[in-house]
Amino acid sequence: MGVYEDFVDLSYNPSERDLVCTFELSPCTRRAAGAVAAESSIGTWTKLTTLSEKTKKRLMARVFYMDGKKIKVAYHPELFEENNMPQILSSIAGNIFGMKEVKKLRLLDVRFPRRIAKSFPGPAFGIKGIRKLTGVKHRPLIGTIVKPKLGLSPEEHARVAYEAWVGGCDIVKDDENLSSQKFNSFLKRIEATLKAKRKAEKETGEVKIYMPNVTAETKGMLRRAKEVKKRAGEYVMVDVLTAGFAGVQTLREEELGRVIHAHRAMHAALTRSRDFGISMSVLARVFRTIGVDQLHVGTGVGKMAEGRDKVLENVHALTDEYYNIKKTLPVASGGLHPGMVPDLFKIFGKDVVIQAGGGVHGHPKGTRAGAVALRAAVEAVAQGETLTWAAARTPELREALAHWKTRTKK
Amino acid sequence: MGVYEDFVDLSYNPSERDLVCTFELSPCTRRAAGAVAAESSIGTWTKLTTLSEKTKKRLMARVFYMDGKKIKVAYHPELFEENNMPQILSSIAGNIFGMKEVKKLRLLDVRFPRRIAKSFPGPAFGIKGIRKLTGVKHRPLIGTIVKPKLGLSPEEHARVAYEAWVGGCDIVKDDENLSSQKFNSFLKRIEATLKAKRKAEKETGEVKIYMPNVTAETKGMLRRAKEVKKRAGEYVMVDVLTAGFAGVQTLREEELGRVIHAHRAMHAALTRSRDFGISMSVLARVFRTIGVDQLHVGTGVGKMAEGRDKVLENVHALTDEYYNIKKTLPVASGGLHPGMVPDLFKIFGKDVVIQAGGGVHGHPKGTRAGAVALRAAVEAVAQGETLTWAAARTPELREALAHWKTRTKK
Repeated sequence: MGVYEDFVDLSYNPSERDLVCTFELSPCTRRAAGAVAAESSIGTWTKLTTLSEKTKKRLMARVFYMDGKKIKVAYHPELFEENNMPQILSSIAGNIFGMKEVKKLRLLDVRFPRRIAKSFPGPAFGIKGIRKLTGVKHRPLIGTIVKPKLGLSPEEHARVAYEAWVGGCDIVKDDENLSSQKFNSFLKRIEATLKAKRKAEKETGEVKIYMPNVTAETKGMLRRAKEVKKRAGEYVMVDVLTAGFAGVQTLREEELGRVIHAHRAMHAALTRSRDFGISMSVLARVFRTIGVDQLHVGTGVGKMAEGRDKVLENVHALTDEYYNIKKTLPVASGGLHPGMVPDLFKIFGKDVVIQAGGGVHGHPKGTRAGAVALRAAVEAVAQGETLTWAAARTPELREALAHWKTRTKK
Repeated sequence: MGVYEDFVDLSYNPSERDLVCTFELSPCTRRAAGAVAAESSIGTWTKLTTLSEKTKKRLMARVFYMDGKKIKVAYHPELFEENNMPQILSSIAGNIFGMKEVKKLRLLDVRFPRRIAKSFPGPAFGIKGIRKLTGVKHRPLIGTIVKPKLGLSPEEHARVAYEAWVGGCDIVKDDENLSSQKFNSFLKRIEATLKAKRKAEKETGEVKIYMPNVTAETKGMLRRAKEVKKRAGEYVMVDVLTAGFAGVQTLREEELGRVIHAHRAMHAALTRSRDFGISMSVLARVFRTIGVDQLHVGTGVGKMAEGRDKVLENVHALTDEYYNIKKTLPVASGGLHPGMVPDLFKIFGKDVVIQAGGGVHGHPKGTRAGAVALRAAVEAVAQGETLTWAAARTPELREALAHWKTRTKK
């Protein structure tokens, strides 16, 4: 038997303590399957003089399921360092993607055993905490992204945010590529925008949320998050994939008491390929485990590519029963406008942030009217009304639906 | 003209201050090309009421080249925050991979303008610094990875490392998934292994290098790196993709005076797909810019999939003339054994670390003999000798070549 085939044991029955991965694999042979299990645990391409049979038997990963297209691999928990997501990913999602033996390899699913899952803090707030903080109980949260993505001054940025809030948005966020540029420095922006937030709260009597993008080198990111805390901002936003797993863990474990909103820019470079990569639902599980409170999961409609089924897998990873770890709130964002709210509600139900950027600031009458339209659409649909009915009452919604040519018979 | 097509301007002539990206794109239409440029700079899917013509003209990215398969996009430098790699990647390698408009999108190349490149420290040591530190001037550096990947105790680990050093390795590194597990805690391992290193140095009269894997959540990673420094270890090793760009920047910018060895576990989930992702040469450029001193770039032979051409692109990104930023030393690692040294030398020349794990510890006579064989092969080839000649002198090499069935007529 070859060195790789050794790692296939179809009679193995994984224990609850094992970490279990499901991979899509081609060619789905014993050799390729064994290569994946070997390289992701303790083996390599040749027999070793330094590996005892005892260690091998104890720590080798085992392919225990193969169906011609997918395999499942069980990993002994001692292979992993608790509370170290980079190490865990270097094992189960590391070298294996580069091996000659595989022509297609995607990590489709991961089941973390309790002990490993609970070595991370999980979300500090989660869906319940966010509902309590915002006071919004019975409908999706309504968000916008300040647009254009880049180019506004801090004062212009705050003004656009203010218009969105008073129009009816609960949440305003920075764009994923806005951090601290010459035209809009981080500190000036959060000063101006948090001031606008307080003004909007006073005028509307509602809780308003600002999500400033703190993405940077880790220490810079922590400094920015602390500046937000110092100014009583409740949220921080981070680009979790370009910052990376170590940085996000550090941000979460600093325990700053801020809600963490996770943007997934770059994810599709990992998740979208048909031949190599990691599914978005695995990334969703990973970031929930690390402890983000909100995460972008696609829309099922709009400008992003994922269909409804993939989006629901992502939502499941954020909201299923998972060792009493809090639920992460799914965020639908990307190419949305008020006309899509009925479809979004069918996919997500009420536990979601519906974020529209262009779909608010592209309203013919401007940002405030766009926010009014989005709020009207969400409230109507949450109460079981059609958009047609709501549009009859709300001219801003009528204009939005006409502008983006939405069929209202849904 | 549509909102996306606006971002195509084939008459645009990029300035030296622009950041320029080359993408492989399908469908390579004006609409898809414009969508990439829009989403990665200031645009979105719909016309905005909040975007002034002045801001648009100044900050929009421009597709200035299209050839039916590839496009080039120029970005105004103000779009980016200096010294913030996560932000830069959230722009040029962010949402775009997930857009409906693209059926295939790979970031093939990036040219950072001087000002942005120089806002990062670059490698502290680079090839010259490593040559000086090790005293090895005229041949590839010889390395091994302690094997098995996991399962040895700290004492066993140190023993295997010692055998490799006295056999002739310059460098011994931890495996990418070894960090601090129950069977082998980080502190005990570096204590034991650095002690073994000093013993090996004394006995051989040569400088020996140990590369302990500090990969963890950022603050944990810094603590580990400081423990290495405290014990006078010269190197730290980090899994740059699973730690992530923010964490690696932080590690580099802590200025601990350690050589940083970068392992690329997980890269192929991003780099290997034919339809979506980022080329390894872009990642190589990014990590050189951030400032790692050594980086795994494939082998062209061995157990990893990349061919010679791709490997040479990676080497070029690490070693070309780049605003006087130091050169990162390429590391060839993955399925190597002494019989492959002539091929490796043809691909890499002398500026490379040749790392063999299984190809050292899998030697029939064990680790020390494996290291003797690898050293003999490298010294022979660096002096223009054939492996046949060298094997005649060195029984360990003869046995290695026979064991791995190497044709020696090269």
